Amino acid sequence: MAKMIVVYKHPANPEAFDEHYFGVHIPLAKKLPGLRMYEVSRGPIASPRGASDTYLVGTLHFDDMHAIQRAFASPEGEACALDVPKYARPEDVQMFLFDDRAV
Amino acid sequence: MAKMIVVYKHPANPEAFDEHYFGVHIPLAKKLPGLRMYEVSRGPIASPRGASDTYLVGTLHFDDMHAIQRAFASPEGEACALDVPKYARPEDVQMFLFDDRAV
Repeated sequence: MAKMIVVYKHPANPEAFDEHYFGVHIPLAKKLPGLRMYEVSRGPIASPRGASDTYLVGTLHFDDMHAIQRAFASPEGEACALDVPKYARPEDVQMFLFDDRAV
Repeated sequence: MAKMIVVYKHPANPEAFDEHYFGVHIPLAKKLPGLRMYEVSRGPIASPRGASDTYLVGTLHFDDMHAIQRAFASPEGEACALDVPKYARPEDVQMFLFDDRAV
């Protein structure tokens, strides 16, 4: 399996972020070809030292890295990429794409 | 479900990191009470803009945030926390703990 993990820092306007993320971005991303599952954090993101500056974590599951590459090369992938700057500043978004396996 | 995602930056000595992470840390962490699954990235971590400074991502699955809190309050959790500085500098580790759900 492969994952794309997207980590968002606290936005200046959480209401506007939520409205766009849940109302526009998730519906767009759910059209990505090859997407197997889309998970979104619920409630605050903690760190072992307590509160954190992270607001939301999205995890998109695909079969492998090739599937992720194909998804992002598709028109649906392009639409997703173009949508992110509409609700988050680039410096507030971290993305991690990788193959993984249970150990 | 709840996740603990641990993101490690590229270590100065990847061989030493791997030896400790796979040989010591994973066996310790697999003893955490309530752990449902432990996944580790395989190969390079990409970003949409290409290569990244991330070396490895570990994802630990629990039933909920309470289970994560119980795990970290346990002797096994303490052993895990004390082990991390033996193979990674604090500034090279990010941890995200949260409840999530499929959307």
